[in-house]
Amino acid sequence: MPINHSDYVKDIVFAFKKLPGIGERSARRLAFYILSQNESVAYNLADAIKSAKQNIKLCKNCFNLSGDDLCPICRNQSRNTKLLCVVENPEIIYVFEKSGNYNGYYHVLHGLINPLEGITPSDIKLRELADRVESGSFEEIILALNPNSNGEATSIYIQKILSPYNVHITALARGIPIGSDLEYVDKETLSEAINFRKNFG
Amino acid sequence: MPINHSDYVKDIVFAFKKLPGIGERSARRLAFYILSQNESVAYNLADAIKSAKQNIKLCKNCFNLSGDDLCPICRNQSRNTKLLCVVENPEIIYVFEKSGNYNGYYHVLHGLINPLEGITPSDIKLRELADRVESGSFEEIILALNPNSNGEATSIYIQKILSPYNVHITALARGIPIGSDLEYVDKETLSEAINFRKNFG
Repeated sequence: MPINHSDYVKDIVFAFKKLPGIGERSARRLAFYILSQNESVAYNLADAIKSAKQNIKLCKNCFNLSGDDLCPICRNQSRNTKLLCVVENPEIIYVFEKSGNYNGYYHVLHGLINPLEGITPSDIKLRELADRVESGSFEEIILALNPNSNGEATSIYIQKILSPYNVHITALARGIPIGSDLEYVDKETLSEAINFRKNFG
Repeated sequence: MPINHSDYVKDIVFAFKKLPGIGERSARRLAFYILSQNESVAYNLADAIKSAKQNIKLCKNCFNLSGDDLCPICRNQSRNTKLLCVVENPEIIYVFEKSGNYNGYYHVLHGLINPLEGITPSDIKLRELADRVESGSFEEIILALNPNSNGEATSIYIQKILSPYNVHITALARGIPIGSDLEYVDKETLSEAINFRKNFG
């Protein structure tokens, strides 16, 4: 058990540093802030985290976060049963749903193949993806993985394991982001934007 | 009570957004990360926050964070009893102690006078500062407040309320940060560096 205030601060700093994008300095800033504020700030945060973690599980079908065995998207039978979008994590589903431009189903891999960090195909939900494609009615599988080497490796692996099935595999377009300035676009993005070009109008 | 997973996510996002430097997007990222990880990540963070908040109070003397009525610095009688350093919050004490270049005592204001946000002198520990100076053995009061308009306003106010007492009031030097490039230093900092110049060598 911590014996003085700096041990408690260290415990919070240690726990915050496990989160993405939070280094030693931000973690310390957050810890001191929480400890200096009214206690509701600390308790609301701690309770929200615990109660969410206690009540949320993974959807048995798509591995989205869910309060029930099946998530609201899998339960919704009015979506397009021909479309399956493969994503790295549940946050990407949030982003897709917010865009309002997709009405198919999802499959969450919970990671990407990453040889450097020892993440192999069996560590993520790839077997489950193949099972769903085998038994489902999907006609098109949209790969919506990040445009980096792990995303590429995972996409190629998926292409391989889905090759026995009669599905069309597509990937999100790469290109110039809306609102950006061509002058500042890196050359890889520009090359991809040329590759993905289509007829205008 | 939340009824589906997105309500739990919303609760965490809402609580994280109360923290400094965390906006909607980082909060969402943190929430999804916590919910996708092994449960120890969530529980360690929640427990560290709660247990720190339950066990840490403010030092009755200097208002530093403390596990006891008096913080370890105030309990330490081998420090320089003539020096008192006035800081905005307990984190600044951490930074000072880490530098290892100060061995006097501290006084934590827990804020700065801020007319725009309605923070008046009576909202921060200024009355307590005057009481300590009146009854203490301090000869020099070092103002270590942030170099902005609220820090300035608070420093001027402190100068006024401490004028009845026989203490020397000083402020941290402003100047060129170590390791910076003169070409990129803003003109206000440069002006201050000229004002604060001293004999070389």
